[in-house]
Amino acid sequence: MFKYLKPFLVGLLVLTLGINAGAQKQATPKIPLAVPTPPRPAGQQDVIELRCPPIANVRIAIIGLGNRGIGAVERLSFINTATIVALCDVNPEYVTRAQDELKKMGKPAAESYTGATDWRKICERNDIDLVYVCTHWDLHAPIAIYAMEKGKHAAIEVPAALTMEDCWKLVNTAEKTRRHCMMLENCNYDFFEMATLNMAQKGLFGEIIHAEGAYIHDLRSLNFDDKYYWNHWRLKHNAEEIGNLYPTHGLGPIAHAMNIHRGDRMESLVCMSTDQFGMTEYAKEKFGANSPEAKAVYKHGDMNTTIIKTAKGKTMMIQHDVTSPRPYSRHHLLSGTKGFAQKYPSQILAFEPNAHTALSDSDRAKMLKEYEHPIVTEIGEKAKQVGGHGGMDFIMDYRLIYCLNNGLPLDQDVYDAAEWSCLVPLTKLSIKNGSSAVKIPDFTRGAWKKVNTVTYFKK
Amino acid sequence: MFKYLKPFLVGLLVLTLGINAGAQKQATPKIPLAVPTPPRPAGQQDVIELRCPPIANVRIAIIGLGNRGIGAVERLSFINTATIVALCDVNPEYVTRAQDELKKMGKPAAESYTGATDWRKICERNDIDLVYVCTHWDLHAPIAIYAMEKGKHAAIEVPAALTMEDCWKLVNTAEKTRRHCMMLENCNYDFFEMATLNMAQKGLFGEIIHAEGAYIHDLRSLNFDDKYYWNHWRLKHNAEEIGNLYPTHGLGPIAHAMNIHRGDRMESLVCMSTDQFGMTEYAKEKFGANSPEAKAVYKHGDMNTTIIKTAKGKTMMIQHDVTSPRPYSRHHLLSGTKGFAQKYPSQILAFEPNAHTALSDSDRAKMLKEYEHPIVTEIGEKAKQVGGHGGMDFIMDYRLIYCLNNGLPLDQDVYDAAEWSCLVPLTKLSIKNGSSAVKIPDFTRGAWKKVNTVTYFKK
Repeated sequence: MFKYLKPFLVGLLVLTLGINAGAQKQATPKIPLAVPTPPRPAGQQDVIELRCPPIANVRIAIIGLGNRGIGAVERLSFINTATIVALCDVNPEYVTRAQDELKKMGKPAAESYTGATDWRKICERNDIDLVYVCTHWDLHAPIAIYAMEKGKHAAIEVPAALTMEDCWKLVNTAEKTRRHCMMLENCNYDFFEMATLNMAQKGLFGEIIHAEGAYIHDLRSLNFDDKYYWNHWRLKHNAEEIGNLYPTHGLGPIAHAMNIHRGDRMESLVCMSTDQFGMTEYAKEKFGANSPEAKAVYKHGDMNTTIIKTAKGKTMMIQHDVTSPRPYSRHHLLSGTKGFAQKYPSQILAFEPNAHTALSDSDRAKMLKEYEHPIVTEIGEKAKQVGGHGGMDFIMDYRLIYCLNNGLPLDQDVYDAAEWSCLVPLTKLSIKNGSSAVKIPDFTRGAWKKVNTVTYFKK
Repeated sequence: MFKYLKPFLVGLLVLTLGINAGAQKQATPKIPLAVPTPPRPAGQQDVIELRCPPIANVRIAIIGLGNRGIGAVERLSFINTATIVALCDVNPEYVTRAQDELKKMGKPAAESYTGATDWRKICERNDIDLVYVCTHWDLHAPIAIYAMEKGKHAAIEVPAALTMEDCWKLVNTAEKTRRHCMMLENCNYDFFEMATLNMAQKGLFGEIIHAEGAYIHDLRSLNFDDKYYWNHWRLKHNAEEIGNLYPTHGLGPIAHAMNIHRGDRMESLVCMSTDQFGMTEYAKEKFGANSPEAKAVYKHGDMNTTIIKTAKGKTMMIQHDVTSPRPYSRHHLLSGTKGFAQKYPSQILAFEPNAHTALSDSDRAKMLKEYEHPIVTEIGEKAKQVGGHGGMDFIMDYRLIYCLNNGLPLDQDVYDAAEWSCLVPLTKLSIKNGSSAVKIPDFTRGAWKKVNTVTYFKK
């Protein structure tokens, strides 16, 4: 045995130094698993609270005119400091439907595009300020990146990206081009979420030490619908992908309440998922046990639970389940050293010294009125009239255009987009490694302490 | 390099075979981390659905007469097929209080014990059938093990054990001595929990794929109280321990609903905890910033979240937070392929084909009546009169004595006790390893498929 000791130790050293790392299968990954942070290219600066020149009339191209796109056409038509100048979808009927909507709203016709890669042509035009992306998930990042490269601001539906590579491309492109890239996380603009953000910023919860968010929404019927998701794109993600496919609705509002990349940051996560039960059982009942739908393989587990730890030692619990029969929930739970809020299944507020007991309905209503977010006070009533998930979609569009009109930082920046979306690839990575802990990179590359809370800027 | 290849590979093989394992520091633990399963000693059999000779009058010794002990004295005095023959506490006043309670209930006096190790003498008596343990946590397993060794059945407050070693000792002692060892998990006997167990067993939720449980209860004031916990034992655990200190109230009811060690079993877990905020902030406000309480180190993070995966691919999410101001919750959430139940913050039932919407209050009440557990139908009204957390404590004691009277398997066995309690050491192990996944051993050592659901036996 001893004659092998020295060369064995040399071999171990080689392994440790990583010289041979490419050739060695690493059976036991480091815990937590690190993912690379590309260095910031020379001459490039962060875009924390980026300000760009004011745009009196924001000229918008909308790419993707399905469920989300047609809603955006309608909502943006209510805003007189913006003009929709281009409409694009591979389905010509959807383009016509959108043009009809413009006509109905008394707006001029936009230019129509129906080619699969016409979004490139649109980005290359020189009379557009904002590319507003409502396509299926896979095109969000590529269009936004190309739009910024061509000098446009980008607003993209959730999630902003599906891979770490695209998360970094969004960040790098925004930093390099000094363009805005906002992920359209509408749930941050919902009424209870905005009130509790206001309470959080005013210290009513004390130090928020734990928060929860979710996307729990039974989409089994819609997933199998022939028309709702173009070319069954969402069904295909359920068939082919694992991890939390859609983390941002739950994460966005609590990330802002916890000052993520504004004094704190997400450092690591662990993720665990059930196997898949719901799609197969549903397909068997709906299409028969021998149907292709029932026999298909759906890789995506039904309930996916993720726990995140922050630099300041707080945790967030995020869930995703779109294939189980249960009432809708985004949780939206904030637990602090002085108070507590929860939105689902029913709204709860509780504060010291009586936090054992939730406020009564009338006391809660009083508090929600007293701490109504100033933006809601400004535009909430109109938002309810315009609609879009009860009004939050309109508040989001209103704020986006308002900030562009006035040269103000947007409410959500490219780091929000990357941080909230990176759960898609990182939860997958955790599951692939037996629910191992995974490090979350710092997309701000050191700038996360420059400001200490999110600001909804006013002129 | 090549001349080193062969001996290096031999060395690697040696490492892999574990011959040298003791001498090598393992920088990167295997994922998931394995914990050893000691082989079953020769001649020892499992105790699944163990039956022992009927005991017409169960002679009971109660060790520990604080908050839980005095309640047990009162409740057990309502059961005429049991007699409390010994009472033990290091505080003589508590023994006197318990004797007074017996007198008030018209029962004969029991023998009094006040020595710190008198529980050994009690276990050594030959006129006792059941040792009922209500001490602080550290003594639960030692007393239960000694009681079984001396031929007694053991009933122990939660958690049953704090270390893997004691979990295995409980299992091995129960298997060797063929004695019952029941952890007194009262929450399994609460009314909503029992109704939803009944629904689960009748298939109303379909396949339960995910469940949640918790112990969320603000104990900051009680932890600092001079009398509530003897010698501040609970405060000391908060100061010295990490992980989920008290997992069984949340886990017990959902484990039974999901047939854990009755056709399925818990295979691995991951755990993540916040840092500690609550105790220090509370102590500063209550005792002053310079008080010993404010300056003490409390290792235990406020919110602890654990995710468990089962052999059949289901998940459970378990939380522990006893130091944050928020309303009490044990979650008790069951999510299946056909229906959904949730107890906190308010009761919800939802079933296909309308599971998007919770049943109305009146429909839920109807369902809960229709699926009332037969044991609740039998004893629920009396339990509400006797009390003990609204009645569940009495149902638990009633069932324990009933099964012993009739020689029936107990509702909770030693494997339940070990499985539910093992989260204490295993969540600690996960956290110590950067929230790494940890394997959960099979305490039944292969017997987890012998029965397919929990049975509340009747004669």
